[in-house]
Amino acid sequence: MKHSPAVRAGWRERLHEIVYESDTFAGRSFDIVLLWCILASVIVVMLESVASVRATHGNLLSLIEWGFTLLFTIEYVLRLLSVEHPWRYARSFYGVVDLLSILPTYLNFLVPGLHTLLIIRILRLLRLFRVFKMTRYVVEADVLVQALRASWPKITIFLSTIILITAIMGALMYTIEGPANGFENIPAGMYWAIVTLTTVGFGDIVPHTLLGRFFSSALMVFGYGIIAVPTGFVTVELARAKSISVAACKSCGKQGHDIDARHCKYCGGKL
Amino acid sequence: MKHSPAVRAGWRERLHEIVYESDTFAGRSFDIVLLWCILASVIVVMLESVASVRATHGNLLSLIEWGFTLLFTIEYVLRLLSVEHPWRYARSFYGVVDLLSILPTYLNFLVPGLHTLLIIRILRLLRLFRVFKMTRYVVEADVLVQALRASWPKITIFLSTIILITAIMGALMYTIEGPANGFENIPAGMYWAIVTLTTVGFGDIVPHTLLGRFFSSALMVFGYGIIAVPTGFVTVELARAKSISVAACKSCGKQGHDIDARHCKYCGGKL
Amino acid sequence: MKHSPAVRAGWRERLHEIVYESDTFAGRSFDIVLLWCILASVIVVMLESVASVRATHGNLLSLIEWGFTLLFTIEYVLRLLSVEHPWRYARSFYGVVDLLSILPTYLNFLVPGLHTLLIIRILRLLRLFRVFKMTRYVVEADVLVQALRASWPKITIFLSTIILITAIMGALMYTIEGPANGFENIPAGMYWAIVTLTTVGFGDIVPHTLLGRFFSSALMVFGYGIIAVPTGFVTVELARAKSISVAACKSCGKQGHDIDARHCKYCGGKL
Amino acid sequence: MKHSPAVRAGWRERLHEIVYESDTFAGRSFDIVLLWCILASVIVVMLESVASVRATHGNLLSLIEWGFTLLFTIEYVLRLLSVEHPWRYARSFYGVVDLLSILPTYLNFLVPGLHTLLIIRILRLLRLFRVFKMTRYVVEADVLVQALRASWPKITIFLSTIILITAIMGALMYTIEGPANGFENIPAGMYWAIVTLTTVGFGDIVPHTLLGRFFSSALMVFGYGIIAVPTGFVTVELARAKSISVAACKSCGKQGHDIDARHCKYCGGKL
Repeated sequence: MKHSPAVRAGWRERLHEIVYESDTFAGRSFDIVLLWCILASVIVVMLESVASVRATHGNLLSLIEWGFTLLFTIEYVLRLLSVEHPWRYARSFYGVVDLLSILPTYLNFLVPGLHTLLIIRILRLLRLFRVFKMTRYVVEADVLVQALRASWPKITIFLSTIILITAIMGALMYTIEGPANGFENIPAGMYWAIVTLTTVGFGDIVPHTLLGRFFSSALMVFGYGIIAVPTGFVTVELARAKSISVAACKSCGKQGHDIDARHCKYCGGKL
Repeated sequence: MKHSPAVRAGWRERLHEIVYESDTFAGRSFDIVLLWCILASVIVVMLESVASVRATHGNLLSLIEWGFTLLFTIEYVLRLLSVEHPWRYARSFYGVVDLLSILPTYLNFLVPGLHTLLIIRILRLLRLFRVFKMTRYVVEADVLVQALRASWPKITIFLSTIILITAIMGALMYTIEGPANGFENIPAGMYWAIVTLTTVGFGDIVPHTLLGRFFSSALMVFGYGIIAVPTGFVTVELARAKSISVAACKSCGKQGHDIDARHCKYCGGKL
Repeated sequence: MKHSPAVRAGWRERLHEIVYESDTFAGRSFDIVLLWCILASVIVVMLESVASVRATHGNLLSLIEWGFTLLFTIEYVLRLLSVEHPWRYARSFYGVVDLLSILPTYLNFLVPGLHTLLIIRILRLLRLFRVFKMTRYVVEADVLVQALRASWPKITIFLSTIILITAIMGALMYTIEGPANGFENIPAGMYWAIVTLTTVGFGDIVPHTLLGRFFSSALMVFGYGIIAVPTGFVTVELARAKSISVAACKSCGKQGHDIDARHCKYCGGKL
Repeated sequence: MKHSPAVRAGWRERLHEIVYESDTFAGRSFDIVLLWCILASVIVVMLESVASVRATHGNLLSLIEWGFTLLFTIEYVLRLLSVEHPWRYARSFYGVVDLLSILPTYLNFLVPGLHTLLIIRILRLLRLFRVFKMTRYVVEADVLVQALRASWPKITIFLSTIILITAIMGALMYTIEGPANGFENIPAGMYWAIVTLTTVGFGDIVPHTLLGRFFSSALMVFGYGIIAVPTGFVTVELARAKSISVAACKSCGKQGHDIDARHCKYCGGKL
């Protein structure tokens, strides 16, 4: 705190290189150690939830958890210190995840049982992509996200249809089967309808009357047929994303041409 | 009733604007208030089905339900009054849904328990599409419906095949396993076959004999393979519906252009 | 038997027209009455399997069943009489189904319980296609069968892979979980593996140990991924079947050209 | 050991012909007898796991198992003797499978219960492909493997996403539902999440609280939608791998010809 602003800027730059970049030896080592710590802390959280392990090694695990939380708290403070706009980092996706990764341990004092939410630390492993320069994979994820986004309006309609069907089937089955057969109320009926429509079929709630079974059968065959719709949409989007070349037209600059196209389909200029 | 026909027509026109259109401020306000009322009334119906909520707030919910029903009844009468051909509206899809949305409350006097069917009110939310000018989405739904319609003959054959398999497997399993193992009768066996073929698998009825398990396994693998057929059909229809316009190039006569293309991708001529 | 051969041939021809064809009024009436009888007899078989119905109307149903069996026996004899080569009909698909549709009632004397197999009568409804001239649908079914046949070698490999995985997983789970956890023997383990791999998931046999759950999870994710393979194959085959024009080359007579092809891809002749 | 090296080489060659090749009568007979032995030994292992069969024929089955193991041991030694580089064979896929097919019987003395792992013998049936010259099928399998490999980066991202979702949902459901409702610990919650996401739905662990059911519903609909992604990828890869050769026409330079095409479909020139 006694350093002049210039020196502090130097400190901050050096710190930034270690904490955020992974080109230098120090930066890369920091990242790899961090990733192993994240993985270990996630495993600790999982082990802590197992009753038999907690009974025998509860104190040890609790200690390790506190150790990791302190470590990640220090790291979080360092990250805040080493950027020019700490607030921007704090609100970014990684910033929020980093904060949520340490909060539950502290909040556990107020609301016991919350510390299982520490599992959110697993999201911090997403840094792997940056550390190991898996840009190729990120591109793939991009294609995927793009295909999903292109299918968005259809997905919205699809989900609305699902909710409509679910609500109507839930009320219908509640009327037909009633609480005596496990359909306690309309929300329970809707839960059953989703379990059935998605072909999950837990079997905790099942129809017993002839009429109930008839409507269930219709819902199942319907759900079976409806599975084709989103699959088809995504496949078409993926096929389209693939067969389109990335080259832009020299005349009008528009993209999205077929691979076998020789002329721009918008302005007619040679590609 | 004392107004001259001309004045009544003016009234009706004004009413039509508010009740059916959503371009004016009054019309838009009416629609938005209506949509919130529909949503609220649907939630009330759901809450009323939950035993614990009904026990504590039963009377209140019943009152609110009556309130909404009266409101929707007034709205229904207004809709009938504000169109030139009330009978045509009454027989339209929206007209029938509007009527079914108020009937159960009244019929509940005759047949108790019917009022859960008020959930059909959720269908009235389909007006959302019109109110928020979601024509883009409606077009999407149109593509979907078109793809389904194009696949219709195949879907018919597919469903017939499913019913044939179901009936034969149901009778076969009833013969092999019998009532002792849960296959009470042929309809129950058919219900089981549908649950299995669609990969839902509730588990309320399961085979116990070696032979029954063998046939079940065959049915499952078969059902697993058959899932490919409707998915494939819809995908092909969607791919076809989407990408290619039927228009041929005027210069070189080639087809297969994208719908958004303005120039032939082979010779560059205007489409 | 007193008729001359010529007269008999005339009889047989007339009978053939009624029994097999559906162009004349008599033939069409015969077919429609027959179809309703088949449907009714199938429903009788189903009703007879329901314990409560059998208890109250058992004798009546048994009587109706005998009536239909006698009717179908007469029809079977007429079919044999009205064709030139009775033996050829008897061995055809429809001939075998027709025989199997009457046998169980007679065999029921020897082996009680067999009469539920009368459900095979439902296959006789396949005549519907012929009666209502649903050739269009038959063509669709043809495309489907063709697509499946084209995928056959891949389906064989796919099924072999499934059997290999099933056997190995079944033995593995039997070793890990053992009879105490429901995995009684290897065939039971294989049955469980099929139920899991096809995402049916009855839940009658489930893993309880940590190791068993781990391997199950792997199998599930694997089965989830493998679902893509047959779906993909059939989709590709369907897409291919569609985009190929039915026109044959004028020079070499070969089919299977793309819709946008201008020259035969085998001999180079103009299409 | 008394034979000269030349004679031994002759022996080894002759042995190699019988044991490895299937062109000569002796070689083909050896292979066919071997395949039947493998199949029989697999069935013996399966039968031995059935308690009722083991009780009555345990000793006989144990004897047969020992017989097959000795036979396969002799065969393994012969295979080692008849190749020039025994070590290379021992480390090959078939070599390892051959060894693993006899080891469990011997190891059963040390660790009882291991002999069910003899089921691995089923992998030896893969030789079927070689014996019956099913190269066509192998090519098909190749296309499949190639399509899977091309989809590999996407599959990696897909699986990582699944694991992330699974861990977070598992911890969330463990926090919401708790051990009282069957979610004993986070690994159990993750197992439940996989069972649900893959639409298997055993039903051994199910949510009981309203909040738990709400999140489950979201997971199910999500899983239902996510099924489209790998299916779509594989379909696109298969479509791409299959239909189009990379060769360009020498006359007009256009690509996109079918693999079986001999003439350019655009200009008719020889390919």
